[in-house]
Amino acid sequence: MSDTTEPVGIPASGERAVTAQQLDAADLLAPLRSRFVLDDPDAADGADDAVYLDGNSLGALPAHVPDRISDVVRRQWGELRIRSWDESGWWTAPERIGDRIAPLVGAAPGQIVVGDSTSVNVFKALVGAVRLVRSGPVGPAGPVGEGRDEILVDATTFPTDGYIAESAARLTGCTLRPVNPAELPAALSDRTAAVLLNHVDYRTGRLHDLPSLTAAVHAAGALAVWDLCHSAGALPVGLDEHGVDLAVGCTYKYLNGGPGAPAYLYVRRCHQDRFDSPLPGWNSHAEPFGMRPDYEAAPGAVRGRVGTPDILSMLALEAALEVWDGVSVAAVRAKSLALSDFFLECVTAYVPAGLVESLTPVAHEERGSQVALRCPAAGDVMKRLIARGVVGDFRRPDVLRFGFTPLYVGFADVERAARVLGEVLVEVTAG
Amino acid sequence: MSDTTEPVGIPASGERAVTAQQLDAADLLAPLRSRFVLDDPDAADGADDAVYLDGNSLGALPAHVPDRISDVVRRQWGELRIRSWDESGWWTAPERIGDRIAPLVGAAPGQIVVGDSTSVNVFKALVGAVRLVRSGPVGPAGPVGEGRDEILVDATTFPTDGYIAESAARLTGCTLRPVNPAELPAALSDRTAAVLLNHVDYRTGRLHDLPSLTAAVHAAGALAVWDLCHSAGALPVGLDEHGVDLAVGCTYKYLNGGPGAPAYLYVRRCHQDRFDSPLPGWNSHAEPFGMRPDYEAAPGAVRGRVGTPDILSMLALEAALEVWDGVSVAAVRAKSLALSDFFLECVTAYVPAGLVESLTPVAHEERGSQVALRCPAAGDVMKRLIARGVVGDFRRPDVLRFGFTPLYVGFADVERAARVLGEVLVEVTAG
Repeated sequence: MSDTTEPVGIPASGERAVTAQQLDAADLLAPLRSRFVLDDPDAADGADDAVYLDGNSLGALPAHVPDRISDVVRRQWGELRIRSWDESGWWTAPERIGDRIAPLVGAAPGQIVVGDSTSVNVFKALVGAVRLVRSGPVGPAGPVGEGRDEILVDATTFPTDGYIAESAARLTGCTLRPVNPAELPAALSDRTAAVLLNHVDYRTGRLHDLPSLTAAVHAAGALAVWDLCHSAGALPVGLDEHGVDLAVGCTYKYLNGGPGAPAYLYVRRCHQDRFDSPLPGWNSHAEPFGMRPDYEAAPGAVRGRVGTPDILSMLALEAALEVWDGVSVAAVRAKSLALSDFFLECVTAYVPAGLVESLTPVAHEERGSQVALRCPAAGDVMKRLIARGVVGDFRRPDVLRFGFTPLYVGFADVERAARVLGEVLVEVTAG
Repeated sequence: MSDTTEPVGIPASGERAVTAQQLDAADLLAPLRSRFVLDDPDAADGADDAVYLDGNSLGALPAHVPDRISDVVRRQWGELRIRSWDESGWWTAPERIGDRIAPLVGAAPGQIVVGDSTSVNVFKALVGAVRLVRSGPVGPAGPVGEGRDEILVDATTFPTDGYIAESAARLTGCTLRPVNPAELPAALSDRTAAVLLNHVDYRTGRLHDLPSLTAAVHAAGALAVWDLCHSAGALPVGLDEHGVDLAVGCTYKYLNGGPGAPAYLYVRRCHQDRFDSPLPGWNSHAEPFGMRPDYEAAPGAVRGRVGTPDILSMLALEAALEVWDGVSVAAVRAKSLALSDFFLECVTAYVPAGLVESLTPVAHEERGSQVALRCPAAGDVMKRLIARGVVGDFRRPDVLRFGFTPLYVGFADVERAARVLGEVLVEVTAG
């Protein structure tokens, strides 16, 4: 991956560095960077901050969040204590914050609740999907009923989705069948109850075609469950528009909610009345403070709640979502593609041919918001990159991941990252 | 509930107020109160702080927690970002904090993990218990195998336990049978797979006999799952000593972890190798960063983990647990009983006969750390109490709950609470 016009180890004053400056100057989203804390505690005085290309793993801290959390802890918990369940809006936080996420994933209000981990929400969604399919008509073409006994899962899925899908299958009497998303249409049948897919592959950064795959699932009379962990906040999702049945996602990547921030569950409005959660906790009861021994599911998205919500983490997320005020997801997507295009261009220029191979599709319609490069000794390479202030991450056995978070990553960051990568790869190869 | 020697509305200088001062002066736990924030934001200058008797719902804020959370947010997340998963000990927090809770509930290390809500942990524990019973011998007397198809649940349980137990039964092909704990021994049979019991009843404050009930469950060849929400941190539990199989509990009541702080799961060491969680997320994998498509459960308590842990809430809890340094649970229990004894004495003295009825057992061995009083118009009564700085809570239809948290409640608080209660009840009855 090199052309013949650029020497390795090109200085920051080179042609592409100039281009980066021009792109940053023209970037309408560039001012958003000031909404985040991006200090590098290890940087020498006067040195540049780290280039943080790991926001696809843990989003950076929005600058106003610490004061908000301090208020939640000191005043809401410390002074108001139990009164905050009402007075500080704690009780309704899961659905209120769900509605705040909704526009970022193309959902009308009232269909998303926040809470629990992504894994737990995958469980609710898949068991819920199987029960929906078995209890009534869900699509235009498919037969209904107990006969549907197969769950299909993206064969390249982030592992937890596969493990949880296996458990959901076991508990509902289904078989789990891993399938490559490209081969999904051929794998669908009238045995298919539900299909769990990742919008963007966590390893390669490949974007799957949500509209056409959802349509194929529906044509087979099954339900589509999408995992949005690597797409929400990076590109338009269009849950409502494309008829997605259920979806889950985390909030600590492109949504910057903080480490282990609660995940969310989307249940399409038309399915809510029959959504039958395998985790019917008291928070999803129609009358939670009635303390009734019999369970009656609440109407609406609240039905996806389970136990007492994790308030500190949840309100950190709520504050973090304010950085999206006035931000267009389409603009974020445009910048994301421009960043990864530019990164691939710089890598081609700065990295000698053959030292890395990109796993990330070139076509925009197949690319998420990260670039995955395969190379030997990738673990060592990433350590050296981090030591030089370029933070990505390493996925075994041989993948370097670089995430592009348009709210706070600029083109100069990208140019520097590719330049340092070229230097490190030459060093490692020579060594 | 009155004697004839005390007028209603006795002033704070009365006989029992003097007794309260003496009891507080002799209380070796009294200095612990300074470890908590107990300011009353509504109190006029110079007025007493509120008497907070709702720590059995939401524990008060330990004074050092806000600064610790600030460090987690500003430095660990804001500056170290992704590095904190290793460098700040985020990844191992669930088991590390579990080991911190362990001595409070009589467990050796390596058997508790923190994470998820109580409801979600009840689900793991019950499905896990049924699978354990069906997969091999678990007790001295009972037959093994698929024939065990009944889950028994405390008929007076906190509702979420019952709802989740119903779901666990449905998904494992069991029948759920509610049974009064007093009648449990007669209800056990060779059909019983697992029994879910509350150590302390959330409404009445009744303490159930964990040792004898666990022994009865074992004698029937079944497994005992205990919910410790209303006992952990208030009285000795003795999980290891009494052979409890699985247990769950929340951390935001007597453990003061903060609103919606993560719950915990105890899996007795001898069951861990065969514990088969219905929520096998990537965090419970033997090699979580191997990203393997096949699931292999981690050894030990880690097997109870699911998804990415909720770091802000979890590390708030970890900090909060430091208030227990050097504190004996036996001493806490002794003070708890002294507080509730004194409260009942003061209520008898200050409340005219017939206005309230106590639902809480008089016998110490049957009493948790709260007193529940039944009266007409209890909702209105509680509102008036809160307006006068005595904070308990109301449970429909007619119950006033007063929780006694020995780390920060004193005898003068108790005397004042009973005195104001007497005044309010006379007022409401007259009105």
